[in-house]
Amino acid sequence: VRGEARRLVVAEHLGTEAERVREVTPEQAAAGTWSDPHVLLSIATPDTADAGQVAAGGMRADNQPAAAPAGGWALPESRYAHRDSMITKSEVRALVIARLRPRLGRLVWDIGAGSGSVGIECALLGAAVLAVEQDPRAGETVRANAVAHAVDVRLVVGRAPAALAGLPEPDAVFVGGGGAEVLAAVAARRPDRVVLTLAALDRVAPTVGLLRAAGYTVEGSQLSAARLADLPGGSIRLAATNPVVVLTGERP
Amino acid sequence: VRGEARRLVVAEHLGTEAERVREVTPEQAAAGTWSDPHVLLSIATPDTADAGQVAAGGMRADNQPAAAPAGGWALPESRYAHRDSMITKSEVRALVIARLRPRLGRLVWDIGAGSGSVGIECALLGAAVLAVEQDPRAGETVRANAVAHAVDVRLVVGRAPAALAGLPEPDAVFVGGGGAEVLAAVAARRPDRVVLTLAALDRVAPTVGLLRAAGYTVEGSQLSAARLADLPGGSIRLAATNPVVVLTGERP
Amino acid sequence: VRGEARRLVVAEHLGTEAERVREVTPEQAAAGTWSDPHVLLSIATPDTADAGQVAAGGMRADNQPAAAPAGGWALPESRYAHRDSMITKSEVRALVIARLRPRLGRLVWDIGAGSGSVGIECALLGAAVLAVEQDPRAGETVRANAVAHAVDVRLVVGRAPAALAGLPEPDAVFVGGGGAEVLAAVAARRPDRVVLTLAALDRVAPTVGLLRAAGYTVEGSQLSAARLADLPGGSIRLAATNPVVVLTGERP
Amino acid sequence: VRGEARRLVVAEHLGTEAERVREVTPEQAAAGTWSDPHVLLSIATPDTADAGQVAAGGMRADNQPAAAPAGGWALPESRYAHRDSMITKSEVRALVIARLRPRLGRLVWDIGAGSGSVGIECALLGAAVLAVEQDPRAGETVRANAVAHAVDVRLVVGRAPAALAGLPEPDAVFVGGGGAEVLAAVAARRPDRVVLTLAALDRVAPTVGLLRAAGYTVEGSQLSAARLADLPGGSIRLAATNPVVVLTGERP
Repeated sequence: VRGEARRLVVAEHLGTEAERVREVTPEQAAAGTWSDPHVLLSIATPDTADAGQVAAGGMRADNQPAAAPAGGWALPESRYAHRDSMITKSEVRALVIARLRPRLGRLVWDIGAGSGSVGIECALLGAAVLAVEQDPRAGETVRANAVAHAVDVRLVVGRAPAALAGLPEPDAVFVGGGGAEVLAAVAARRPDRVVLTLAALDRVAPTVGLLRAAGYTVEGSQLSAARLADLPGGSIRLAATNPVVVLTGERP
Repeated sequence: VRGEARRLVVAEHLGTEAERVREVTPEQAAAGTWSDPHVLLSIATPDTADAGQVAAGGMRADNQPAAAPAGGWALPESRYAHRDSMITKSEVRALVIARLRPRLGRLVWDIGAGSGSVGIECALLGAAVLAVEQDPRAGETVRANAVAHAVDVRLVVGRAPAALAGLPEPDAVFVGGGGAEVLAAVAARRPDRVVLTLAALDRVAPTVGLLRAAGYTVEGSQLSAARLADLPGGSIRLAATNPVVVLTGERP
Repeated sequence: VRGEARRLVVAEHLGTEAERVREVTPEQAAAGTWSDPHVLLSIATPDTADAGQVAAGGMRADNQPAAAPAGGWALPESRYAHRDSMITKSEVRALVIARLRPRLGRLVWDIGAGSGSVGIECALLGAAVLAVEQDPRAGETVRANAVAHAVDVRLVVGRAPAALAGLPEPDAVFVGGGGAEVLAAVAARRPDRVVLTLAALDRVAPTVGLLRAAGYTVEGSQLSAARLADLPGGSIRLAATNPVVVLTGERP
Repeated sequence: VRGEARRLVVAEHLGTEAERVREVTPEQAAAGTWSDPHVLLSIATPDTADAGQVAAGGMRADNQPAAAPAGGWALPESRYAHRDSMITKSEVRALVIARLRPRLGRLVWDIGAGSGSVGIECALLGAAVLAVEQDPRAGETVRANAVAHAVDVRLVVGRAPAALAGLPEPDAVFVGGGGAEVLAAVAARRPDRVVLTLAALDRVAPTVGLLRAAGYTVEGSQLSAARLADLPGGSIRLAATNPVVVLTGERP
């Protein structure tokens, strides 16, 4: 994602005399025919506006650029500044993140980012992330949450699909908000994976249809999570959260 | 996890003259005060019984030893050999894996492994994994599934809690099977995280109580996933899977 | 429902010298300005083809023509002959029946009757019932189930909406099968209440819209019932049934 | 339920010269060998404290003493005065009422009545009802709701199981509140049917065990109802209510 405040660097033949360090494009990174042992690093450029959120030298705070995050993902909603219930619930996010397959060398778009939780967790797992959010105040929340989680999430304040026009090609796209025209614009970019959360029952079938028409294999579930809550005397009851449909389109 | 067919190696000052490569213990790896840039590698030892499942040199097949797996996790049940419905469903597994926080340098126990899917996905995310399974035939399935997913999962065929006695200390434990005495034995080892899936409603409250008594903070959800299924004419219906309670104990 | 093998009879001034017994139309019955004490009886005519299923004299088998049935309603699926899963589940039926408000003097249509369970239970609660079913074999099942439950359900074998044309005006209609054109034909008859069960997510919003456009107030729920099942040792687990949306339109 | 402000009256040989009207006990009513045609009436005695809620002459307002109620049952929560969420939700009530099998000539206990909604709807379906509620203020709510629905519900303000001691034998009992000792006291009275709603997961298995030990056949479901809610543009989303387990014990 050259120009997106992050560089991909491949170090090959690690610990040998033939060791070589090269900067690569995401396409080259995806091609991936490096000599072993090697490691692929994602390094924030010095001129990033959000430089404060990453440790010196562009490394992640835990110095494990490619590893799954020490603090995990699918974090509680309380770990993110957010308004009302405008945040993907932890249980749903666990599934969304798994379906997006974030990792080092992949670019994820988080469209209708809201609190930014999905994008931030993709970044925690090593992905480069572009968060698209039309509401400038929500954008500030995304930024603050990214700083709090010490990840580099590039924010695009604008309305999809227009705001998507100039962005670098994504490997995976999360659509947390937006109608059919946003999804059509996303599908036209042909990412490997498209993941949506849908609250509206009526959008499920058309979304499945649109993704299939664009060549995607689609699967999905309606997830209902009821949280354990304490009753007096050590008893446990359930506190329901609203059902959400999680849809995944995968390019075969 | 010395002696468990895997070595942890830290390479510091990568790409500089001060570069240094050292083998470390998990405790040292967890302490984590390495000089940057560095990378932590988990390398299978040559004498591993399952050497065939990892690429030459002990690297993971995708040459990203620490990265989130290229093929993702929370994979469909069809990706694992399994008997009947004796496998954690994909949606539930997404949450379980997130709660276990697997990563390079951590050891995860998968007790009552069944198909091995939970342990295998922890390994895909970089963790060292010990799968404990009392049924030798299920053990063979775990082994076959690990080979198919090209990860190193060490299998212990035996009955918990007895089988847990000599095992190295875990960072996180998944308990997919076993009663209160298994959980008590697990809690006595004081892993940072304990995750359980419970089908029996009556086991939820006692399990919460036991974990709290052992000093864990506990949260949980009952997850109900209903899968989208096609009806004629492009309509979509829901096919329910059985509700499962996912419990997480975290050492504060 | 004269001519539908059932007569409505009003007995007024019961137990007094002014006692009077009259046959009335459903419209008259609905108007309902009888002198007290009175009782309204629904009596099968002698020439009914299904005479065997009602006791001599057209009374219900339990001799409580208007009372809630001694054996209850929302009966287990096992109490009805049915094919595969083509029967409204007991928990869903409990809600459907309540929403239909069946009672003596009301006519309920059961469209897409399947096993006939909904219509039969409306009859058990005192309503006159017309079951419409396009599949003659399913029709035979409806008939057999009605006999088994000793109620008088008039069967119309035919395809809705065409089959609805000549039928007497309903007070309440259950639509268990059929598309938008069936619902439109039902709404055109302006029954007080329309109740639907929908498996297809995509049909929910259009159905709500159609009912509202026809002047109905609409409410509904997605019902997910997970049945208790025994595990060894007195434990209880849940066995899910598929979620169903129950929609009710009420004329204000 | 003589002395409970309601008399059961059987009218036999209706409309014939042999017509006979007799007052009977519930036991006699249950025995039920009346000559046809007959009707069983439940008439409030003139000295009832709640005389205002029933029409002159002790008839129900709609003059259909035994019929299913004109206004239906499983009514919206908004139809009952209640505090917070301390009321059985409509969808759950539909199942509870069906399982209780209320009808003319049966006595239903509603223990832990809360708003009284379950007992009131049993009364609407013809049953005699005793509501037991320990909180005097909740008791006032039960009374007010009964008046508003024009039914006769006898209120016992007291704490179960003690408060159950002198009450007439029930045909069916709803236990909306109370622990194991309440259920044991109920089972000891050997009603035909016992229905419970349980929020506490841990109470499900012991309750099943207790009912079985008392000779009941038990079935149950966890009911999750998610209500349809409008989104802009005619879309529909789901608003979850908390899962509730409905248990039914039936004397074989």
